[in-house]
Amino acid sequence: MGNLNRTAVAGIGETDYSKDSGRSELRLAAEASLAAIRDAGLSPSDIDGMVTFAMDSNDELELMRSLGVTHLGWAARTPFGGAGANATVQLAASAVASGAAKAVLVYRAFNERSGRRFGQPNPAGGYGGSPGRADFHAAYGLDTPAKIYALWYQVYMQRYGVTNEDLGRYVVQARQYAATNPRAWYYQQPITLDDHQASRWIVEPILRKLDCCQESDGGCALVVTSLERARDLKQPVVRVLGATQSHARGSFIMHNYYKSDLAEQDEMKAQGQMLWNTTGLKPADIDVAMIYENFSPVVLMSLESHGFCKPGEAKDFIADGQIGPGGALPVNTNGGLLGEAYIHGVNNILEGVRQVRGTAANQVPGAETAFVSARHSAIIFGPDG
Amino acid sequence: MGNLNRTAVAGIGETDYSKDSGRSELRLAAEASLAAIRDAGLSPSDIDGMVTFAMDSNDELELMRSLGVTHLGWAARTPFGGAGANATVQLAASAVASGAAKAVLVYRAFNERSGRRFGQPNPAGGYGGSPGRADFHAAYGLDTPAKIYALWYQVYMQRYGVTNEDLGRYVVQARQYAATNPRAWYYQQPITLDDHQASRWIVEPILRKLDCCQESDGGCALVVTSLERARDLKQPVVRVLGATQSHARGSFIMHNYYKSDLAEQDEMKAQGQMLWNTTGLKPADIDVAMIYENFSPVVLMSLESHGFCKPGEAKDFIADGQIGPGGALPVNTNGGLLGEAYIHGVNNILEGVRQVRGTAANQVPGAETAFVSARHSAIIFGPDG
Repeated sequence: MGNLNRTAVAGIGETDYSKDSGRSELRLAAEASLAAIRDAGLSPSDIDGMVTFAMDSNDELELMRSLGVTHLGWAARTPFGGAGANATVQLAASAVASGAAKAVLVYRAFNERSGRRFGQPNPAGGYGGSPGRADFHAAYGLDTPAKIYALWYQVYMQRYGVTNEDLGRYVVQARQYAATNPRAWYYQQPITLDDHQASRWIVEPILRKLDCCQESDGGCALVVTSLERARDLKQPVVRVLGATQSHARGSFIMHNYYKSDLAEQDEMKAQGQMLWNTTGLKPADIDVAMIYENFSPVVLMSLESHGFCKPGEAKDFIADGQIGPGGALPVNTNGGLLGEAYIHGVNNILEGVRQVRGTAANQVPGAETAFVSARHSAIIFGPDG
Repeated sequence: MGNLNRTAVAGIGETDYSKDSGRSELRLAAEASLAAIRDAGLSPSDIDGMVTFAMDSNDELELMRSLGVTHLGWAARTPFGGAGANATVQLAASAVASGAAKAVLVYRAFNERSGRRFGQPNPAGGYGGSPGRADFHAAYGLDTPAKIYALWYQVYMQRYGVTNEDLGRYVVQARQYAATNPRAWYYQQPITLDDHQASRWIVEPILRKLDCCQESDGGCALVVTSLERARDLKQPVVRVLGATQSHARGSFIMHNYYKSDLAEQDEMKAQGQMLWNTTGLKPADIDVAMIYENFSPVVLMSLESHGFCKPGEAKDFIADGQIGPGGALPVNTNGGLLGEAYIHGVNNILEGVRQVRGTAANQVPGAETAFVSARHSAIIFGPDG
């Protein structure tokens, strides 16, 4: 990972999170971007690089025109949808660390509820708007993310005796965090385990409705600069201690049916190991974690695959309250993608930054390090120095 | 541009260039990629990063599986189609220079003649497969690249008194280079200026058929590594002396109708200046140039905007034989996108590498530096040391 740790997040911004934004995706991108640029104490003409998702509908050139960015010398997009959410920061950090750009704007904005819904079959083919070859499974009715991923989760759950009630304990905690986070769609709407167990099956016996992330309208953005420059800017420095992607042979976007042991998550294990090796940190050094949970089982699999729990122990770790306030590793303190919003995982990056700044709604006292992961990409944020 | 010049192109590969490849785009990508990896003396498992166009249909994960790449830690895509062709090398160099990846595979492959033809209107909307908002002009019948760009070329041609016959002199030279390049589609098929002037109008009085680049089937690939590693590999070192993108406010993919002077090419001037500043080179130091010419006028505009000619003098520079063998600046020695093939500009990158290696079909004697440009991205290649 070389010198990515010579970079920092200097600014973050976001729109409101809703189910019907009433405005264009471009406007959402521009609002979030302008907020991030101002948060950093910069102006649009300071931006000389941009990163967004390959799936984002907002053209860089249109966003430039909307914001007043005058010239870009670097632009890239990250493939793989939300699986690569954290790759945005890795790409931006690569640009800055190599000297190819000085201030890179990362943005992601969509009307994913009032526009095309990712949870529904995609009339254009495939599913979830993601690229890839769905031909081999779409014909069998596997046409939504919930249906496709549930098969994969099932193998893990069977091996370790994880029940839907175990998943529910994560969901209850996520909704508890959301209930005290004014940005969250489910602000002031906590649920009980009974509520979870009463919600209807989406894919029986794996996923209930409350195990699925939201479909949201909204935008998120952040600005990555050099560590040196961030020190002279407005906000407390949030350093990129490490960032990586992890794509193993056989993968298909966010799952992998071509490996010998479907219950194990090779990609997540590899990215965790890469980050521990290059940062010199270990799981016990992490104060707070943001885990991309398009569906609740991913939290359990991620806790184990990244080394925060031993195999099969995540359900007990959660039941013991270890991901809640005062626990060993508070997780998704914004309410996560289930409780806060689903801005394709980028809202979880912002929460990681806020925790290191010390400004989160559900601030973990004294938090210095934040681990932000998705299935194929992860970041560790930390303090300056 | 920082330390991008600590990187090098270690390998290049390509398929045959045709009008009907008879095989899938994925296979074309795999053939070109494997050739590039072998050319470098590496094996697929050495590749840990990938870059392609946002428009490329070949998923990184499928290409991994096809090639035997075991793990990727970095992947990015470049927006803007061919305008950003050279951004592929910039992105790969950013990854390597920042330490985020060790060996990045760049690939681009398509069946652009036997599949969807970029020169025809795109039934999916827009044109050329490019993203962007065509709504404001498509309704007026501007539905192909030739029609849209011709309006932009016209302003330049009127200001400097450039005629279609002036364009023809470039085309004759490009076809002459193609005629002696066995890789070129138009190998052994030179044309005369009369042939050019007899070809039918596509957009009168700007572009004839022979002013338009080909639609080709094929694939190109290259491998970018650190300079240090390249020195230990199989081929002569071709160093990335500099690489940049250049997107100015108001641009729309490959043209810009929102600026005060439509005859001037602000983006190309900016990228030229950025490369001269960071490499310490000047136009007179360049031995050979590859210029992305989707249409012939771009060569003239690029020669002037990048500082190889004074404004309005490119037509005389060409008429004087300065872009031909023995001229001051041989241009598109592979035959360019008109004569060799249109692999979205990436075949021009390969020719730049070959010229610095000293292995081009139409080798410029003693060539050490190659300037490879497109409207919104450019690279300077040079020797080691």
